[in-house]
Amino acid sequence: MWLQEEFRLSAKKRGFHLVTHEVTDSLPELATIKVGQLHLFIKHTSASLSINENADPDVRRDLESHFNHFAPENAPYYLHTLEGSDDMPAHIKNCILGTSLIIPVSNGSLNMGTWQGIYLCEHRDHASGRTLVATMQGDKLGFNP
Amino acid sequence: MWLQEEFRLSAKKRGFHLVTHEVTDSLPELATIKVGQLHLFIKHTSASLSINENADPDVRRDLESHFNHFAPENAPYYLHTLEGSDDMPAHIKNCILGTSLIIPVSNGSLNMGTWQGIYLCEHRDHASGRTLVATMQGDKLGFNP
Amino acid sequence: MWLQEEFRLSAKKRGFHLVTHEVTDSLPELATIKVGQLHLFIKHTSASLSINENADPDVRRDLESHFNHFAPENAPYYLHTLEGSDDMPAHIKNCILGTSLIIPVSNGSLNMGTWQGIYLCEHRDHASGRTLVATMQGDKLGFNP
Repeated sequence: MWLQEEFRLSAKKRGFHLVTHEVTDSLPELATIKVGQLHLFIKHTSASLSINENADPDVRRDLESHFNHFAPENAPYYLHTLEGSDDMPAHIKNCILGTSLIIPVSNGSLNMGTWQGIYLCEHRDHASGRTLVATMQGDKLGFNP
Repeated sequence: MWLQEEFRLSAKKRGFHLVTHEVTDSLPELATIKVGQLHLFIKHTSASLSINENADPDVRRDLESHFNHFAPENAPYYLHTLEGSDDMPAHIKNCILGTSLIIPVSNGSLNMGTWQGIYLCEHRDHASGRTLVATMQGDKLGFNP
Repeated sequence: MWLQEEFRLSAKKRGFHLVTHEVTDSLPELATIKVGQLHLFIKHTSASLSINENADPDVRRDLESHFNHFAPENAPYYLHTLEGSDDMPAHIKNCILGTSLIIPVSNGSLNMGTWQGIYLCEHRDHASGRTLVATMQGDKLGFNP
């Protein structure tokens, strides 16, 4: 069984955002999969997907601080500067954090750890919503016991 | 064909560890897959999965040194400090290195390069074992020639 | 439907290279998949796969500059130095950027964003071609309307 759909995450301010429920609310089909996986793909080069702690919001703030230090704006070696000082760091962060997540699905739910959540990492100062492609596959939950 | 199971890697000290055999010994079902893939997912936010050189142990030591420099303890901008000085760097390293690996399976074996091995990257000073979800799928090795 | 094949990307100089067409030209089978995904796996520990902007070549140059700053050659803490000053940074870059890409396939084509392209990130000064394993799966495009 293959299911695929595009959906849009609402616009977020720059930073790391917990979006687990925004994602699962967009994908009711997950509940029909017994054993399988969800692939999330973000169709952008300046925002990323990641998985990390779902509890203390300071973790998300510290991640934003860290990435701002280690993928800085206005580095003297940047050539790609016409799209704003936040743009080249956004591309770097996207390469480091990635465009895809694969999450196991078990008995109709995402099988993540207790403390894990899905992050949208928004790297631009003024972004619109972000488009994801969700591809779900697996064995269907049936009626046989 | 879908196969999914959770298993636990034994507790490791902080650092990068080669765990290819510990993983494959836990997944005898791999031998039944002709063409497919293995998805490994770590259910934790302070340890990561990666793939890199399986030969010189100095590579693993240097990776640990590098990540300690570039995801430092006690950075002045950290707000999330209550869980120990190794905790926030652990979350950063996990975001950079990732929670998932996808490895092609060919004729009953992982189809990696000669020098590649699976790493468990343990970011905490005192960790217990780590739980992985392995999801395997593919065409089954059959008896027809 | 499972399809798997190994193919070789031509040798590249050190840096970030846009290889979308070199990849898709090697995989004509993609055109037969209605809904599915492509997994690309690089069988090397000193070159990586990534996805980022397909337009301005300065983005690729800036990525190379950035990674050279943040995974430097000749760091005083490196122990693994016998294979050349570009080798240990290559392993670090590979761990950060990754060995795998998963890209959704829709109606016979890769379903990426308008500005996204596939990168081969070559981290060695003098590399040969690089071997990839492509694993494609999905529902086949049929004749039924």
